[in-house]
Amino acid sequence: MDKHLYDQPITPRTESEKQAVVNRLKRIEGQVRGIQKMVEEDRYCIDVLVQISAINAALKKVGFTVAERHMHHCVSHAVKSGDGDDAITELLEVMKHFSKS
Amino acid sequence: MDKHLYDQPITPRTESEKQAVVNRLKRIEGQVRGIQKMVEEDRYCIDVLVQISAINAALKKVGFTVAERHMHHCVSHAVKSGDGDDAITELLEVMKHFSKS
Amino acid sequence: MDKHLYDQPITPRTESEKQAVVNRLKRIEGQVRGIQKMVEEDRYCIDVLVQISAINAALKKVGFTVAERHMHHCVSHAVKSGDGDDAITELLEVMKHFSKS
Amino acid sequence: MDKHLYDQPITPRTESEKQAVVNRLKRIEGQVRGIQKMVEEDRYCIDVLVQISAINAALKKVGFTVAERHMHHCVSHAVKSGDGDDAITELLEVMKHFSKS
Repeated sequence: MDKHLYDQPITPRTESEKQAVVNRLKRIEGQVRGIQKMVEEDRYCIDVLVQISAINAALKKVGFTVAERHMHHCVSHAVKSGDGDDAITELLEVMKHFSKS
Repeated sequence: MDKHLYDQPITPRTESEKQAVVNRLKRIEGQVRGIQKMVEEDRYCIDVLVQISAINAALKKVGFTVAERHMHHCVSHAVKSGDGDDAITELLEVMKHFSKS
Repeated sequence: MDKHLYDQPITPRTESEKQAVVNRLKRIEGQVRGIQKMVEEDRYCIDVLVQISAINAALKKVGFTVAERHMHHCVSHAVKSGDGDDAITELLEVMKHFSKS
Repeated sequence: MDKHLYDQPITPRTESEKQAVVNRLKRIEGQVRGIQKMVEEDRYCIDVLVQISAINAALKKVGFTVAERHMHHCVSHAVKSGDGDDAITELLEVMKHFSKS
């Protein structure tokens, strides 16, 4: 946390940006609940795995949306302010974890 | 769905097995809600990405647990019953999607 | 090594099976050499990254081919011989690494 | 190709930078040849899969090195020159492929 370049997005997320991400996360939350139901109903393993893959793919999409906005605003701002190197190191570290997850 | 080898796990999941998976999914569901809150509070992008990576990793772990049980029960049963090839093709197809997600 | 269930594939690879895999690996080897040339010629980073993604995807395909044959022969044999649990644990461990790579 | 922002890295790679990447790729090339030999010698499937995972991981490391340099030079330059949005879109597209590979 303390190693982070900024505390918040350099350009605050607008209400409609927040809403778009939250809506996608609410759908993902519903999908996670759906898998709980599938397990409780003893549904076939392959069907459960297909659903887990779908959620992971949906979460990665959200992640790339967040990363893209981060680059357009925070990283770009950092580059122009002379803090580009720190912003790039910070982003790449998280992308490495992301690509393994 | 109709292309699946079985309709349900060949050995029904026990109550404690179900509970263990459902508990992990409930924790993941809570984490997804946590990210919604982070977005609403306009938390820093990198923190959001770290959380998304953590959820993906947790979901993959659940997926491997499901795949492992599936192999010990359904695939093993299929192999012994002469349906091994179908079970293996079915599993590998879903693992390919899984590994890209 | 010593923790492995078998020393060799339970059904030896046929010459044509070997040739098919080796041919795909030779093509991948050529692609890796191609990237070296791109770097030496100072080609654009994005083009280099596209090529690296293509090689990774090709290697994963080879990996899934190897895993599939392994399941049809070694794992199936182990299941029928009463060593199924060891074979499944062994395979899943390597699939976990594979899915992060 | 024609959709790319630049034709070459905005700061040419130095000889030592080229050498470092080429050396790592030569090692990877050797590992790919090593797998060919393993297949020809009919080595155990799991050993082959372990090696494939190792190569994938090594290639991803090279990819992240290339991406990092790209951000420090090309993307940063583009941001300062007013072409940041194109550079970011271009990079994220390739990172999405990369994360699935």
